[in-house]
Amino acid sequence: MRFTSEQHLADGVLEREFTLGDIPGFLWTPASASPSAPLPLILLGHPPLGLRRMYPRLVARARHAAAEGFAAATVELPGSGDRPRWPALDEARADLRRTMAAGEPVVDALVDALVLPLVDRAVPEWRATMDALLSLPGIGGPVGYSGGVISIGVRLAVVEPRIVAAGLFAGSLVPRVMFEEARQVTIPLHVLLQWDDEGNDRQAALDLFDAFGSAEKTLHANMGGHAGVPEFAGEDAARFFARHLR
Amino acid sequence: MRFTSEQHLADGVLEREFTLGDIPGFLWTPASASPSAPLPLILLGHPPLGLRRMYPRLVARARHAAAEGFAAATVELPGSGDRPRWPALDEARADLRRTMAAGEPVVDALVDALVLPLVDRAVPEWRATMDALLSLPGIGGPVGYSGGVISIGVRLAVVEPRIVAAGLFAGSLVPRVMFEEARQVTIPLHVLLQWDDEGNDRQAALDLFDAFGSAEKTLHANMGGHAGVPEFAGEDAARFFARHLR
Repeated sequence: MRFTSEQHLADGVLEREFTLGDIPGFLWTPASASPSAPLPLILLGHPPLGLRRMYPRLVARARHAAAEGFAAATVELPGSGDRPRWPALDEARADLRRTMAAGEPVVDALVDALVLPLVDRAVPEWRATMDALLSLPGIGGPVGYSGGVISIGVRLAVVEPRIVAAGLFAGSLVPRVMFEEARQVTIPLHVLLQWDDEGNDRQAALDLFDAFGSAEKTLHANMGGHAGVPEFAGEDAARFFARHLR
Repeated sequence: MRFTSEQHLADGVLEREFTLGDIPGFLWTPASASPSAPLPLILLGHPPLGLRRMYPRLVARARHAAAEGFAAATVELPGSGDRPRWPALDEARADLRRTMAAGEPVVDALVDALVLPLVDRAVPEWRATMDALLSLPGIGGPVGYSGGVISIGVRLAVVEPRIVAAGLFAGSLVPRVMFEEARQVTIPLHVLLQWDDEGNDRQAALDLFDAFGSAEKTLHANMGGHAGVPEFAGEDAARFFARHLR
């Protein structure tokens, strides 16, 4: 992990850009943090639209995390942003868009072709990122995963024992096999559902919530579309992490 | 409204018992409240099991309300507690219990016979209680309704313009006609659902949530049975009222 830039944001947040191999990422910490009191860490998931485009929302979430005394970090997803194109992913995405635009049914194969390769590649990258971040003097864990492609969160919750709590956003299509993985999840979960999400299947989201094996799981459903998450819903999610990472 | 007793509880809460005609009730206020700064009011709904039995849970909710600077009040439901028996209600309840114990299907007529007469009688009593409470010098509104038989909350939200927000508990059987009334509700709603509530139909609860006409409505689903609402869910509900009654 190599830090490539560093700047102090408003609200006393230190933002550092890094690269891990060829993967760019951001680490945000409270500027007042001391290496002698290592911080819990929240991994900020996001959709595969590129870090540059997602930056305003990511930095807002990082500011909230820093205000709670947590470090927050994110990395570019494979095939997104400035990383090398991934033609198979672009093709799967284009297929899905054409299908949805034509009002045709979204068959399982389309969803699998888009999501499963992304999960397979992104999850080891997130884990390598955790290795690097947790070896920094000021970062100690425990680790939470928040938002982004829900299938990535599910897989991480199953395979990565260092993640102790996850806040998931039921806002993307879920391959059928992920329902099986969901049954293996046992960490506390906070699941956000936008009731009228145009790009999502509400019943599938409820079924996925039902499938999770966790003894503590909470679903927060709010009105509005994909991007209409109310501010108080973000505050509820922050309290979830405060309960589990402190 | 006649106050019949008054005592100071721990946490600086003043508890007053009252009767309104032949209806007994409780009013809880922060002991430090001043008549010159009239308090918002939360009506504490509860199941028809008698105030005496429900008292420990009610006073706990009242303490939370007082800590937020709100008055809280409740009244005995018709046919419950020390109020005159209501044979038709007792019979409807016994019919429903027999049916559920026998594992037979709960047909609409059974639910209607139990819930609709209760709603028809309880709602005017809650409104008369509001009239009396809001004429007290220290109580000013706005008013929220919280918990209890969800159909009572739905009807109140439709007919009572002084209620500006409602926190509902999807924990009781809902007559089919209430889905129509739910469409007429427009105030902000906070709906709590226990995902594995043994006495409730999860799909009906989700359908009712979907039916509400409110632009702001939030569903919080948590694991566990009817009585297993986690403490953090109560805190989320408190924040909902704090947002809307302050």
